[in-house]
Amino acid sequence: MKLLRVGPAGAERPALLDADGVLRDLSGLVTEIDGTLLSDDSALARVRQAAAGGTLPAIDQEGLRVGPPLGRIGKVVCIGLNYHDHAEETGAAIPAEPIIFMKAPDTVVGPDDTVLIPRGSAKTDWEVELAVVIGRTARYLESEDEALAAVAGYAVSNDVSEREFQIERGGQWDKGKNCETFNPLGPWLVTADEVPDPQALRLKLSVNGEIRQDGTTADQIFSVAHVVCYVSQFMTLYPGDVINTGTPAGVAMGQPEPKPYLRPGDVVELEIDGLGRQRQVLKPA
Amino acid sequence: MKLLRVGPAGAERPALLDADGVLRDLSGLVTEIDGTLLSDDSALARVRQAAAGGTLPAIDQEGLRVGPPLGRIGKVVCIGLNYHDHAEETGAAIPAEPIIFMKAPDTVVGPDDTVLIPRGSAKTDWEVELAVVIGRTARYLESEDEALAAVAGYAVSNDVSEREFQIERGGQWDKGKNCETFNPLGPWLVTADEVPDPQALRLKLSVNGEIRQDGTTADQIFSVAHVVCYVSQFMTLYPGDVINTGTPAGVAMGQPEPKPYLRPGDVVELEIDGLGRQRQVLKPA
Repeated sequence: MKLLRVGPAGAERPALLDADGVLRDLSGLVTEIDGTLLSDDSALARVRQAAAGGTLPAIDQEGLRVGPPLGRIGKVVCIGLNYHDHAEETGAAIPAEPIIFMKAPDTVVGPDDTVLIPRGSAKTDWEVELAVVIGRTARYLESEDEALAAVAGYAVSNDVSEREFQIERGGQWDKGKNCETFNPLGPWLVTADEVPDPQALRLKLSVNGEIRQDGTTADQIFSVAHVVCYVSQFMTLYPGDVINTGTPAGVAMGQPEPKPYLRPGDVVELEIDGLGRQRQVLKPA
Repeated sequence: MKLLRVGPAGAERPALLDADGVLRDLSGLVTEIDGTLLSDDSALARVRQAAAGGTLPAIDQEGLRVGPPLGRIGKVVCIGLNYHDHAEETGAAIPAEPIIFMKAPDTVVGPDDTVLIPRGSAKTDWEVELAVVIGRTARYLESEDEALAAVAGYAVSNDVSEREFQIERGGQWDKGKNCETFNPLGPWLVTADEVPDPQALRLKLSVNGEIRQDGTTADQIFSVAHVVCYVSQFMTLYPGDVINTGTPAGVAMGQPEPKPYLRPGDVVELEIDGLGRQRQVLKPA
């Protein structure tokens, strides 16, 4: 299923994109697309049944804002330098184990919402990423099979980053990762049954129509299953948590000087096979 | 006012500790102690008035669990190496500007709840800290006066840390800061009007009765006002967010070998002038 949330920011309602591309209202069936729904097999089965039955009311998509496909996000865990080609472009060594940092859930916005360039920023950068949405509590998992069983679904994520704040302002990447609007997510939460192999997804990102990132999750240093299993040794993952699994090569930081960091008016478009497309216009904060 | 939340984990109800040390039930007046309440001056005034009027029902404190004093926490921002004596004991240079890292809100537990030593941990450490609770949205603040106006209140926080995970496992401190139960908070949220000078608070922590930390917020490198103003340049702070403002000297990591890292059965007690006391027993995860 392709689950999503539509409507004004903060007042989104749950919806589903059916097999014919028709948007269907789920608000008569569930109150929210969140960890509670994703961990409730019978509620998910009711949604699936209603979708198959064709009884869900259609919604006119014209002019409708799409929000992030997940409400009440608990935490956003991010994996750094998780693609061979991206580690290489940044001049970093291949990590021996996953690098973990955090974004606050309040950085998450819809896939086509405005992204704000922070005041004082000269190095705002893009990162197309495969986001993993957790559906089962994951704590000290013992196998990659257990890890995949904890995954409710996948989404497109833009792990927007301010490189000076991240790297040149006294330590710890979080300082450049938590600016407002810095995590467009969606359009859809695609349930895991529709993503047979998370390690075979093409990711693309362009800026002002010029392709900047064109990678594949096959190049991930640590697979989705490994990452979920690994993270669960250091923190408990709960339904409704999100993991951004890293970005392939092609970020602005990895380009020759003058590096093409984002400026007001720039348009960033990104997509992942089967997970949909995002489009953000940059504006000053 | 001293606001708190009492009852079983996940089902706490709002309460108030009155001037006579009597616990008063607030659940007839407010649904939760959270960012919504803290940003609502008229709701806070009603609570204050009811407390003064002596009409709030008393609660028997006997055997009652105290939860974290704040529900629906949005994010927990932490400041690293913010005391001169702690920077010195760790061998680190005095930071030129605040170091920022993040804890997930799901690490927050009550002040006397069990703290779990993560599996595989040999270096679980303590950190008594002054926590700042945000009551007004803080975004690109321009002065320290604005910053203090955004503070709803203060609480005791234990920024529990696993030093091997934090420092020796491939980068970014967050890996050793987000284990479950790693942020005891409370017992009370003391409103800012009752803390005339946040830079004149004594902090103490003992392990098994032995004093380990005995510091003062006067030794902070960056004051509460400076920290709130600074953080607001990099991320937006919302009502219900928490900032752990750093720890004074005396953590296990700063001791000579063999460093006294925490073991199952250890008892950690901590307190800050006017903000109450915590007591945690360590158990294996």
